[in-house]
Amino acid sequence: MESHREGCFLLPNAWDAGSARVLEAAGFPAVATTSAGIAFSLGRADHDYGGARVDRARMTDRIREIAAEVRIPVSADLEDGFGESPETVAETISLTLAAGAAGGGIEDFTGDRSRPLYDPELATDRIRAAREAVDAAGEPFALVGRTDVLLTGGPLDEAVRRANAYLAAGADCAFVPGAADAATIGTLVRELDGPLNVVMGLTGNALSLADLRELGVRRVTVGGSIARAMYAHLLDAARELADRGTFSYAENQISQTDLNQLFRR
Amino acid sequence: MESHREGCFLLPNAWDAGSARVLEAAGFPAVATTSAGIAFSLGRADHDYGGARVDRARMTDRIREIAAEVRIPVSADLEDGFGESPETVAETISLTLAAGAAGGGIEDFTGDRSRPLYDPELATDRIRAAREAVDAAGEPFALVGRTDVLLTGGPLDEAVRRANAYLAAGADCAFVPGAADAATIGTLVRELDGPLNVVMGLTGNALSLADLRELGVRRVTVGGSIARAMYAHLLDAARELADRGTFSYAENQISQTDLNQLFRR
Repeated sequence: MESHREGCFLLPNAWDAGSARVLEAAGFPAVATTSAGIAFSLGRADHDYGGARVDRARMTDRIREIAAEVRIPVSADLEDGFGESPETVAETISLTLAAGAAGGGIEDFTGDRSRPLYDPELATDRIRAAREAVDAAGEPFALVGRTDVLLTGGPLDEAVRRANAYLAAGADCAFVPGAADAATIGTLVRELDGPLNVVMGLTGNALSLADLRELGVRRVTVGGSIARAMYAHLLDAARELADRGTFSYAENQISQTDLNQLFRR
Repeated sequence: MESHREGCFLLPNAWDAGSARVLEAAGFPAVATTSAGIAFSLGRADHDYGGARVDRARMTDRIREIAAEVRIPVSADLEDGFGESPETVAETISLTLAAGAAGGGIEDFTGDRSRPLYDPELATDRIRAAREAVDAAGEPFALVGRTDVLLTGGPLDEAVRRANAYLAAGADCAFVPGAADAATIGTLVRELDGPLNVVMGLTGNALSLADLRELGVRRVTVGGSIARAMYAHLLDAARELADRGTFSYAENQISQTDLNQLFRR
C-alpha cells in the first residue's frame, strides 16, 4: 500500500455555524459535522440505544446553517440515514446535498439493542442507494460508508468485510470508528480496498496525525470530541460560578472585538 | 440601603439549549441568554456599530429553543428590542413572552455611531411600552431596563439618571454594563431607586459574587463571557489539531455516556 503518499486529511467536526467558522479561521480546508455535538447543542442526547433522537429535519437544518456560513466544504454526519430502508437513505442524501454539504457518512448502527447493526446485505444496499442518489444529483459529494462493528463489540474481520462491501457498493471512503491503536488501524489499511477514515479524540489516545499518516490512514475526523471538551470547560465555568462565585474562567477568552471581527469576516 | 439583605442572584448566560441545560444541571435556578453568544453560535457578529445583526425572528427562535429545553426560567437578552419605536419594543416583548421567556432586557444602545444611545425621553418611552406589553400579557415577566451609557463612554451621573428613568417607567431592575469596580457599583446602588444588575466576566475583573452582594447588587449576569471563553478553548483545540496534529485537547472531556445521560434527563 502506498496510500499514505496520497495524503492524510484531518476534518475537525463542528456542531454549529460558529464552531465551523472558528475551525475555518484556524485554517482547515474542510470540516465535518458531529451528530453528537449537534444533538447536545440542541439540548438532546445523541443517537444511541433507545431514547429520542434529533430528527432529520432539524439535523439537515443545522447542516444547512453550517454550510451557508463557511466557504469550505462540509461533510455531514448522517447517522444511519435516519431510517432503515435504502429509499430513506437515498432521500437523506438528496436532502443533505440540497442543504449544501459536499460529503456525508452513512453508518450501519441501528440504535436497537436487540440488533445493533443492520444486516450486511441491507447495510450494503443502503450504501448503494446513497451512491445512486449522489450520482443522480451529479454534484461532487464524498460518500463515507461507516461500520460500527468495533463500537458494538464485533470482530475486526467483520469490520473489514463490511467496510469492503460498502466500498464496493460505492462509498468513496470507509469509516471504522473504534479503530484506535496502530495494530488495528494497520490491519484495516492493509485489508481495505479503499481509503480509511478513523476517528480520534477519545481520552487516552496515543497516536498523532503523523502516526496515522504513516500508517496509511487517509482521513481523520474527531467525532464529538471537541464538543465534549467544550462541555467540560462549560461545566468547569458553571461550577466555579456556582460554588465559588468567582469569574476566573473568563480570564482566557477571545475578546468581543476579535470575535466580532472573526464572524464579520 | 439594606437591599443586599434581599439576596443577590447570579444568572449565567446561555447561547443555545445545550449550554442552558448544562447551566441548569450545575444548579442555577435561572439562566439568562447572551445575544453575543447566540450571534456567534450562528456564525454572526454581535449587535455592534455597523454591520448585519441577527434578526428578531432568529433570536426569538433561539430563545424558544432554550426555554423549551430547560425547566428553569429564562431571561432573554433582547438588545434594543430590535427596533427604535416603542411599538416595536412592545411587539418584541410579546414575541419573547410567547417564546416562553420569563424575563428580558431592553437596552438603549442604537448601534449607530453618530448617535450611540436613544435619546433619554424615547429610551424611557421604550421601557414604558415594554412594561405595558408585559402587563397586557398578564404573565410573570421580569423586565430589565439597560443603559449603555458607561459602555459608550458617558458619565456615571447620566447612567444614574437613565437607570432611574427606566425604573420609574416600569423596569423591575436596572442593568448598567460597564460598572465593574466597587466605587462605581457602590454609587449606583446608593443612587438607584431599584435593584441593580451588573455584568461580570471581563478579563481583569477583581470582584467576586460575595463582594457584589456586599455592595448591594441584586442581580449578576456574565454576558457573553462564558461563550467567549468557550471560543478561546475551541481555537486552542483547533490550533493544536492544525499545528501539532495531536489530540490532547480531548483529555479533558465529558464522556459521551455522561452527556447523553445529562441531556436525556
